[in-house]
Amino acid sequence: MTATASPPLDTAAVRARIDAVLRNFLHEKARAGTERRLPADVTEAVAAFLFAGGKRIRPMFCVLGWQAGGGAGVPHEIVRAAASLEMFHASVLIHDDIVDDSDTRRDQPTVHRRYGTAAAILIGDFALAWSDELLHNAGLSDDRLAAALPVIDRMRDEVGYGQYLDLLTTGRPTSDVNQAMEIIRYKTSAYTVERPLQLGAALAQAGGNVAPALSAYARPLGEAFQLQDDLLGVYGDPALTGKSNLEDLRNGKHTVLLALALRQANSDESERLRRLVGDPRLDETGAATCRELLTMLSRRRVEQMIRERWMQAQRALNRAPFPPEAVAALRHFADALVTRAV
Amino acid sequence: MTATASPPLDTAAVRARIDAVLRNFLHEKARAGTERRLPADVTEAVAAFLFAGGKRIRPMFCVLGWQAGGGAGVPHEIVRAAASLEMFHASVLIHDDIVDDSDTRRDQPTVHRRYGTAAAILIGDFALAWSDELLHNAGLSDDRLAAALPVIDRMRDEVGYGQYLDLLTTGRPTSDVNQAMEIIRYKTSAYTVERPLQLGAALAQAGGNVAPALSAYARPLGEAFQLQDDLLGVYGDPALTGKSNLEDLRNGKHTVLLALALRQANSDESERLRRLVGDPRLDETGAATCRELLTMLSRRRVEQMIRERWMQAQRALNRAPFPPEAVAALRHFADALVTRAV
Repeated sequence: MTATASPPLDTAAVRARIDAVLRNFLHEKARAGTERRLPADVTEAVAAFLFAGGKRIRPMFCVLGWQAGGGAGVPHEIVRAAASLEMFHASVLIHDDIVDDSDTRRDQPTVHRRYGTAAAILIGDFALAWSDELLHNAGLSDDRLAAALPVIDRMRDEVGYGQYLDLLTTGRPTSDVNQAMEIIRYKTSAYTVERPLQLGAALAQAGGNVAPALSAYARPLGEAFQLQDDLLGVYGDPALTGKSNLEDLRNGKHTVLLALALRQANSDESERLRRLVGDPRLDETGAATCRELLTMLSRRRVEQMIRERWMQAQRALNRAPFPPEAVAALRHFADALVTRAV
Repeated sequence: MTATASPPLDTAAVRARIDAVLRNFLHEKARAGTERRLPADVTEAVAAFLFAGGKRIRPMFCVLGWQAGGGAGVPHEIVRAAASLEMFHASVLIHDDIVDDSDTRRDQPTVHRRYGTAAAILIGDFALAWSDELLHNAGLSDDRLAAALPVIDRMRDEVGYGQYLDLLTTGRPTSDVNQAMEIIRYKTSAYTVERPLQLGAALAQAGGNVAPALSAYARPLGEAFQLQDDLLGVYGDPALTGKSNLEDLRNGKHTVLLALALRQANSDESERLRRLVGDPRLDETGAATCRELLTMLSRRRVEQMIRERWMQAQRALNRAPFPPEAVAALRHFADALVTRAV
């Protein structure tokens, strides 16, 4: 007998199942809260946040990691474990928006703008606790759950350090490209791509050769994704991305785009960039000047870096020990992530 | 053969072992961080916070729950699991101090006063992630770990709701005694006493009759402890407690002490209390007036409530299915918690 190939992944269906898990979980929390006469703000805030948007990238990568690790089909407990990553992501973004003092997210006022900073801290803590609960109650066997936890722990450390480095460097633009890449590695490569994939593989109890093969794909792809995100943060259309294309410039976010520009700039250009970037009163005219300077100095190089990394991720799949349908799905995702305009 | 009784719990030795676990964990985190050239602030801030004080109440209750559930000795993995509760507590307090806008904790400036609010949010998130990691890497068997996680999840929900209710009611003093008791149940009874004890019992894989017997002891004791804490927050000596005896009054913390006073007060007394409590500029003279009013109106009743609950906790031990040395240790802890002046 030959193994029958699994059908290709129906991503829309998986995404709908992930959303259903999140919706049911929050519904159950709201019901239990009402019974105990607890304030409904918490579940409402988390639900409003989760369903205002979000591409469910991390849960999808978890499911892809499960497939890459040889997991069959997409069982309910894997969807639930995958959904826990979206709940964790909500907690990260809710706190991140306080840290960055952002006004909008997903076209809506941020949680701390709606409920105040104190409440938003606690609401983010709830989302974090609930991400744990979703995973713990996914219905996994004890040994699968125990295999998943170290991946989660590592991911949390990495995203935490990424956020912390981000905070330390924001508002102090430098030409240190390596440091900007380091932040990307912690905050995006590991957190958005590599660890979600490895979580799925751990749940599939995959062989020892799967995790490094996933990393070989995930690291360049995560870098490409974040470099693209940084371009969108400056050149994106807010109507499409749902977020401001001024805030990164106003906050002086330490990106590769900016670091490369400062490295290339002559003293006049450098002086102009340093005056504008990080200025809390930066307006559209100033932002247009920034964009012109960045286009001239570093945009093309960043676009090239994205292409190189995308190719590296694709090449890593050529020799990966994954089932063919997993390889196909991972190729598709690499394209979708890097060519997106939103 | 008869079972040999375990020796009585050497609490000082257990506390020293808990501290050693925390110290080694943070040392390892700092070492790994230095290798990766990560900012040292995070481990330094958490270490400074943990070792500035703290009575390790929750870890001690976890060890007592282990004993009550029939666990033999105090194995290293139990100490480690217990220590994770102290790390979790640090995360709760670091965020709570931002929420309450407190200036000092354990005689030191609060984390957000030292590092800023944004960094303190992230440092609190690290402590939360690290509490998970301490538990996950405690060296527990998969089934013991799986038994522990639901207790932790429940505890996090409860403390979260306690904090959230606290936030909603602070600054709006009312005579609603039931609501003040509700906050105590979430924020202290469950979080400080009941769930730590049940965590220990879950780790010991105790029989089904142990958890309710622990609750029967824990709930009144937790209430007594918090009522006592509220008295110390108003009447305590800051030199002994390490925290201000003005802040609860200034912030208008919704305590049973205050709710009972407002219920008893005539219209003149009520008007004076409402004017002073929650006034951010409240000075020593105003605080002295508050204390006089509270002494006249509700202090004695609160002291009586503490005694009643202490007795209830003691009585619950008379019929508890725990080994005698666990009963003795739990009796001792009930006394220590409720008669403390700090």
